[in-house]
Amino acid sequence: MIAIWPLPGMPEIRPGDDLAEAILAGCRRAGLEAADGDIFVITHKVVSKAEGRTARILTDADYRALVADEAVDIIRRRGDLVITRTRHGFICANAAVDRSNTPDGTAVLLPIDPDRSAHRLRLGLERATGKKLGALITDTFGRAWRRGQTDVAIGISGVVAVLDLRGSTDHEGRELTATEVAVADELAGAADLVMGKAARIPVALVRGADLLGNGRVADLVRDPSDDLFL
Amino acid sequence: MIAIWPLPGMPEIRPGDDLAEAILAGCRRAGLEAADGDIFVITHKVVSKAEGRTARILTDADYRALVADEAVDIIRRRGDLVITRTRHGFICANAAVDRSNTPDGTAVLLPIDPDRSAHRLRLGLERATGKKLGALITDTFGRAWRRGQTDVAIGISGVVAVLDLRGSTDHEGRELTATEVAVADELAGAADLVMGKAARIPVALVRGADLLGNGRVADLVRDPSDDLFL
Repeated sequence: MIAIWPLPGMPEIRPGDDLAEAILAGCRRAGLEAADGDIFVITHKVVSKAEGRTARILTDADYRALVADEAVDIIRRRGDLVITRTRHGFICANAAVDRSNTPDGTAVLLPIDPDRSAHRLRLGLERATGKKLGALITDTFGRAWRRGQTDVAIGISGVVAVLDLRGSTDHEGRELTATEVAVADELAGAADLVMGKAARIPVALVRGADLLGNGRVADLVRDPSDDLFL
Repeated sequence: MIAIWPLPGMPEIRPGDDLAEAILAGCRRAGLEAADGDIFVITHKVVSKAEGRTARILTDADYRALVADEAVDIIRRRGDLVITRTRHGFICANAAVDRSNTPDGTAVLLPIDPDRSAHRLRLGLERATGKKLGALITDTFGRAWRRGQTDVAIGISGVVAVLDLRGSTDHEGRELTATEVAVADELAGAADLVMGKAARIPVALVRGADLLGNGRVADLVRDPSDDLFL
């Protein structure tokens, strides 16, 4: 059984804040104690705020300039919508520059190195608890072909990214066709189910997934030369 | 808190089998009793088998012919890989014709009308339990830009498909940017986390999501004229 708890009551995060401490305070408020194998899922916005990855924007032109700055490539453009590739290789709208849920006049950017951010967070959580944990940082991306956004992993530490079942056979001895499961993205979306709606809770705790490992977010980024939809 | 249980020990499903009965037997084996708000997530393969949506294939040419038959459009082709649009509007590899985990010489097709299949299943489950339930039918699809497959909803009954937060504002009064959350896909992926790996458990029970509603899978299908990646 997998259990997913929201950790409500997180304070507004400011540059330099200790996220691990804030998360563990959230656990205590929720009556939860970290256990070996637990995976903490956190929306990138609080990570970026703690790391000072925000920018002043006063006008729509400022916003567009910031998007252009954060993007390494424009993939598609239609009206105000710009589909971009970020430095990390993510394909997403507006280079993931976010001006909702931010103090007025600022925008939140993605962490420079989200795996490193996740690693730092995981070490902080492990040191404070003495448990073996995983950390995922997430963002909300649109998809091709399907309506609606889902949360996906943008930073990973101590968690499997893609579960490789190649070589596994089914009970008839035939090789499985769906052989690489993007479990980090499935975890991110699962956690969003308790974070989501109007409440905007930025952290969730996932227990029982049995997915500690050594994934990196690059494992989830398809090589552009291998991509039929760029 | 959301809890997700796998329902192991499902028998091999044959045409005409009562899926609701098989699922509730799985609940009893797992020591679970359905409660109002529970969502049952089931991989399409068992639904298709119960509905006789399988086909004989002896050769690779048979398989290719079947894929051509199930597809209404070829979106991309590279070597053996064919990205197709199905009658339902799904963009996926090989028109979702599946020959893993099937008796040798057969392939499993998608249900003709997966929402209707989900509806029938949900009514069966509700009649037997007296509870208000939801049912999702899933398949495993690849994505553009990101490696690995995730499970997504292909049939929906009694569950929200896309949670529309347009008009919601954040705590600064600014309208939320990520305003349409594909919760049915996030539920499908979450359920895969307990079904997945080699075990291939076809049914999961999700409790606590608070997502009963009136979604249809068409809500998740982006209109091709609105799609930048076709």
